[in-house]
Amino acid sequence: MQLQTSAQTNDSLLIRNFFAEVLTRGQCYQTLDYLSNRIGGRLSGSPEAAAAVNYMKQTMANYGFDSVWLQEVMVPHWVRGEKEQAAMITGKERIPVNICALGNSVGTPEAGIEAQLIEVKSLEEVEKLGREKIQGKIVFFNRPMDPIHIHTGTAYGGAVDQRSRGASMAAKYGAIGVVVRSMTLALDEHPHTGAMNYNDSFPKIPACAISTKGAEELSKTLHLDVAGSVKFYFKQNCRMMADEKSFNVIGEIKGTAKPNEIIVVGGHLDSWDNGDGAHDDGAGCVQSVEVLRLFKSLGIKPKRTIRCVLFMNEENGLRGGLRYAELAAANKEKHLAAIESDAGGFTPRGFNCSALGNTMTLFQNWLPLLKPYGIEKITWPGGGADIGPLSKQGAVTIGLVPDSQRYFDYHHTSIDTFDKVNKRELELGAASMAALVWLLSEYGLN
Amino acid sequence: MQLQTSAQTNDSLLIRNFFAEVLTRGQCYQTLDYLSNRIGGRLSGSPEAAAAVNYMKQTMANYGFDSVWLQEVMVPHWVRGEKEQAAMITGKERIPVNICALGNSVGTPEAGIEAQLIEVKSLEEVEKLGREKIQGKIVFFNRPMDPIHIHTGTAYGGAVDQRSRGASMAAKYGAIGVVVRSMTLALDEHPHTGAMNYNDSFPKIPACAISTKGAEELSKTLHLDVAGSVKFYFKQNCRMMADEKSFNVIGEIKGTAKPNEIIVVGGHLDSWDNGDGAHDDGAGCVQSVEVLRLFKSLGIKPKRTIRCVLFMNEENGLRGGLRYAELAAANKEKHLAAIESDAGGFTPRGFNCSALGNTMTLFQNWLPLLKPYGIEKITWPGGGADIGPLSKQGAVTIGLVPDSQRYFDYHHTSIDTFDKVNKRELELGAASMAALVWLLSEYGLN
Repeated sequence: MQLQTSAQTNDSLLIRNFFAEVLTRGQCYQTLDYLSNRIGGRLSGSPEAAAAVNYMKQTMANYGFDSVWLQEVMVPHWVRGEKEQAAMITGKERIPVNICALGNSVGTPEAGIEAQLIEVKSLEEVEKLGREKIQGKIVFFNRPMDPIHIHTGTAYGGAVDQRSRGASMAAKYGAIGVVVRSMTLALDEHPHTGAMNYNDSFPKIPACAISTKGAEELSKTLHLDVAGSVKFYFKQNCRMMADEKSFNVIGEIKGTAKPNEIIVVGGHLDSWDNGDGAHDDGAGCVQSVEVLRLFKSLGIKPKRTIRCVLFMNEENGLRGGLRYAELAAANKEKHLAAIESDAGGFTPRGFNCSALGNTMTLFQNWLPLLKPYGIEKITWPGGGADIGPLSKQGAVTIGLVPDSQRYFDYHHTSIDTFDKVNKRELELGAASMAALVWLLSEYGLN
Repeated sequence: MQLQTSAQTNDSLLIRNFFAEVLTRGQCYQTLDYLSNRIGGRLSGSPEAAAAVNYMKQTMANYGFDSVWLQEVMVPHWVRGEKEQAAMITGKERIPVNICALGNSVGTPEAGIEAQLIEVKSLEEVEKLGREKIQGKIVFFNRPMDPIHIHTGTAYGGAVDQRSRGASMAAKYGAIGVVVRSMTLALDEHPHTGAMNYNDSFPKIPACAISTKGAEELSKTLHLDVAGSVKFYFKQNCRMMADEKSFNVIGEIKGTAKPNEIIVVGGHLDSWDNGDGAHDDGAGCVQSVEVLRLFKSLGIKPKRTIRCVLFMNEENGLRGGLRYAELAAANKEKHLAAIESDAGGFTPRGFNCSALGNTMTLFQNWLPLLKPYGIEKITWPGGGADIGPLSKQGAVTIGLVPDSQRYFDYHHTSIDTFDKVNKRELELGAASMAALVWLLSEYGLN
């Protein structure tokens, strides 16, 4: 009992030091400033993504981590083309609306496309309507995210199928394009991009997102259009290029007692191109680097190896996450656990994880050490997109859960910028992960 | 046991309805839009404060609360004068810095004042330095809020004595003015106003706040000034006018079973004049009105009387809170509990309260009903400035505790504006208070 108490006291002091250090001398905010304001949006295959790889590698090298390296990975290279994407409701009058191409979408012909619109609320509705009603039209997916969910991620999960699979579903029944209501709970003028995927069985038709205010306007116009004269016009010249070589950026501090047991902390270095990717996921990247920096600057030597991984291409391919896991398996590395921060740099409120049974019990026993810092719960299930492939190798996957209310105000838009990130909220997330990494490195999973 | 379970199920459903209603059809955000953008800063005694009284009374009347009335109260009327407040570091070069007068401060002579500066970190340091070092100088209070506190209110509490009592302490030893580092954890160019109070035993000297970046610049300049040639110049023409008549704005829904037991929910309607008072405390006002509106719109009839009180003059006098309690005593009203929201319209994370013993146990038993909505704890001590006077009459005082990280980025500045408030975060606070008001109205305190 004495030992247990003394260990807990030690853990408690050490965790307090993580928070004190990050809140007084934290460096993640300035790193994010550079990543957002000097480099900007970092879409896979872009020059900005390449610049981000170099900058983050150099940042980790400057901190003196035990090793820093790049892990090559081929990534898709989608380009938006001209930023001038035009869209309007046409009929008696022409009403311009704000759109942006969905990621991975094909472009329209140069003159754009114009057609009658049909508004639907779900993929199922497209199937029910069938070819007779869909053929030759533009399908307008307009099911809003449901505001009653307290965690906004749940609302996102309940609506995003329209964006990811709407185009192929519409194409199956002869549509020539789709317009998708932006994935946000806010009513504003910012269209939200994000990945869509084609089902190769059907024609590839152009897909764009429309701002929520534009969606409301469009829906209202359609409902008033008894004559059926309203059409929708849009034009975008995005396209998929050949794959490009890129990299995961990795830094590590070797464990003193069990160096072969690895704990990953990471985020994804690529972002969408319309904003600066400050919250998604610049925040997760700089927090993950900060975790290792906190260990270094406080002189804490972990028993197990801790590794910061900045994954490339989460947004439109997940190639980095897949590649990392593939090489981990090939190299017979043992990954104990992986933590991902990819839900914005907001005040941390908990973790979610894939652990069950004894491991979950262990995590709950650690919770009192984290509660003074606002980490209120550790829930199942959980993890992160990039670390998902590691779970097949037995790693426990863990996601940092920040407050979710503002995330979809910025997510995948031109306003996901540095000024939307609060320094302390960002720092608290980094220290929360450092605390959990410490406990994992010290005690393992059982 | 069966009854208990059925009561809890009922409570749980009803609380879910509060959240669903506010998140889908909430009206507090649009009320705050008007209060912030149409009326703006509402300093006690100002025309804007009078406009806010009328607007909020009308808003409650429109909702059809059982009664809506004004409660007269005389308030101090301090005016900032010309917004053009000038300040600079003078010496070899003249470096302009951003200041604003502290609330209740006297102005400078029309030409401004210029004197040597002495930097201190505390009131105690002024006493130690004594008249010899202080006489004829401007005292620069430069102790920052301590960033290591997780709750920023704690950091504020640890620094604000410089603002509230610094001037009189400096005047006691012959200083001719004070400059106080702004009360914020952010490093930026926004000076933060806020109340200061004179001790009538000493001369009233002008007091201003300097932005944190200005404070850093000033401190650096002083440290480099081996010759002692640096001075500080500032000018402000604020002044205290005669008291003005104003009002607390009150609306209530009568209890069905115990109408004489009152539960107050409120915020303060006055704000500082430099911004729009959106977070401080427009948010608390519109949330409090929303609590009663939620009862009305859901057709919920409380057993006890619930009363929304928008207090006047929290910022520089507390006259509204004192007057309300005075009249409550005179009218022999029984106040069971009072909840105040005055910490910004951010995601709610808990309540603090003055309850101990059985009442605290009762509150903890209610906590599981609130946890699904992110209310993670109810702690002692607590309450709010305006409801403080009610605690002497036996009311349990309760404060809504939102996430605190961003509050002092905006508090008492020109950027405390509507665009800094997230609609959902604001709404969650309103529903959280409605839930607690429901439980109090249904079960009382024991």
